[in-house]
Amino acid sequence: MTYCLGIALTEGIVFCSDSRTNAGPDRVNTYSKMHSFFFEGDRSITLLSAGNLATSQSVIAKLNRDLEGAESITIRSGKYVSDVADYVGELLVAARSRYASEEGPDAGLDASASFIIGGQIAGQDPELYLVYPEGNHIAASSAQPYLQIGETKYGKPILDRIMQADTQPETAMRCAIVSVDSTMRSNATVGPPIECLFYRRDSLLKWDKYVRLDDDHPYLTKIRKSWDENIKKAFDQLPALDQSSEAPV
Amino acid sequence: MTYCLGIALTEGIVFCSDSRTNAGPDRVNTYSKMHSFFFEGDRSITLLSAGNLATSQSVIAKLNRDLEGAESITIRSGKYVSDVADYVGELLVAARSRYASEEGPDAGLDASASFIIGGQIAGQDPELYLVYPEGNHIAASSAQPYLQIGETKYGKPILDRIMQADTQPETAMRCAIVSVDSTMRSNATVGPPIECLFYRRDSLLKWDKYVRLDDDHPYLTKIRKSWDENIKKAFDQLPALDQSSEAPV
Repeated sequence: MTYCLGIALTEGIVFCSDSRTNAGPDRVNTYSKMHSFFFEGDRSITLLSAGNLATSQSVIAKLNRDLEGAESITIRSGKYVSDVADYVGELLVAARSRYASEEGPDAGLDASASFIIGGQIAGQDPELYLVYPEGNHIAASSAQPYLQIGETKYGKPILDRIMQADTQPETAMRCAIVSVDSTMRSNATVGPPIECLFYRRDSLLKWDKYVRLDDDHPYLTKIRKSWDENIKKAFDQLPALDQSSEAPV
Repeated sequence: MTYCLGIALTEGIVFCSDSRTNAGPDRVNTYSKMHSFFFEGDRSITLLSAGNLATSQSVIAKLNRDLEGAESITIRSGKYVSDVADYVGELLVAARSRYASEEGPDAGLDASASFIIGGQIAGQDPELYLVYPEGNHIAASSAQPYLQIGETKYGKPILDRIMQADTQPETAMRCAIVSVDSTMRSNATVGPPIECLFYRRDSLLKWDKYVRLDDDHPYLTKIRKSWDENIKKAFDQLPALDQSSEAPV
């Protein structure tokens, strides 16, 4: 499994991902799920991937190979990030249908994957999309600023409480890290290192800030300890369930 | 969907459940998922149910009808709570196989359900089990004091942080309510009222404490507001992601 999220802020876009892949308990590996495509002064696009690793790798590889060829649409030539999202969707469906079949020895193979793709192209606003396994996509909005793929449930409650479009970038990165770290605690198929990137609106730089937190990174150790203590304190300070709360029996 | 949990404490057992059922967005209803079987001085057993409502209702109805007949095993005659859990598992498999078929117009119907069952029988220790849709069951343990069924993920992180076998009953009830309420916030198929019951070890009473919290219950309103404020404060007090956290690029 995997857990990745993208957050569309007024000031830019935050991307955050874990790095664990597993194909059964004997095959647990570390792969970065964050892929940046940067063309100075023209566009800065980041992809996060979840799902079947062979499928997502084949999509990313094709995106890279396209840049050397004469394809009509590439991650470099799309006019909008949504064009690139459409193209990623096409590649994804093609990769899935190559390996999945309804009959034969591989029937039932789940070769599906999903992507978060976002960034900015010169002259346009920043854009953030979630590409579904079927190839279609949805956009983030000011009412729903974050998009998640993979093992999304454990880390959702904290996002629901904290995240808004006008949240400050540092706060959003911190919240994304807490969301991924809490998921790692509750689910063994999500694991370190955590990568977190902030792209600043209109900068057209690769990133404004990027951190990669290994399991023993001092900041991750510090924020884990602090969050655990703070949550316990937050819980202890809740009003007690006294007699007056009881229902008539 | 549904979210129910049971917690095996040193001092007794906490049961907590939501009350929403849905069969599509047009058929959202309120049903209690908490069923108590109490025979004074002899046994106090509580069931929580999740999954297909027709299946779980047929199991509960059969348990009640058995009490009037001459069945060899009933919820009244089992020597251990685990005997009752075995019996519930049998009824569950029978109910599922009555409606699910591999062929015909209802092929693919998911008639599965699961149960949490716990309590105490005179002369025995309290017991707490999770009965899987396949009819088998697992017990809670001191290392894993809580068991969940239904929509379990959103509410798990807070349990992982707070819940231990020696947690006080009031604290455990409060934590269960927070866990269910957080789930209601993140998932529309889990809804009020929240029922929470504490059975005290060796009391052989129906319950030591029982609350039923409707959406506008003063305690639920109070704990929701307080939890939201406390979580935000807990988050604000985390160490900031400063320059020194950045990875070499």
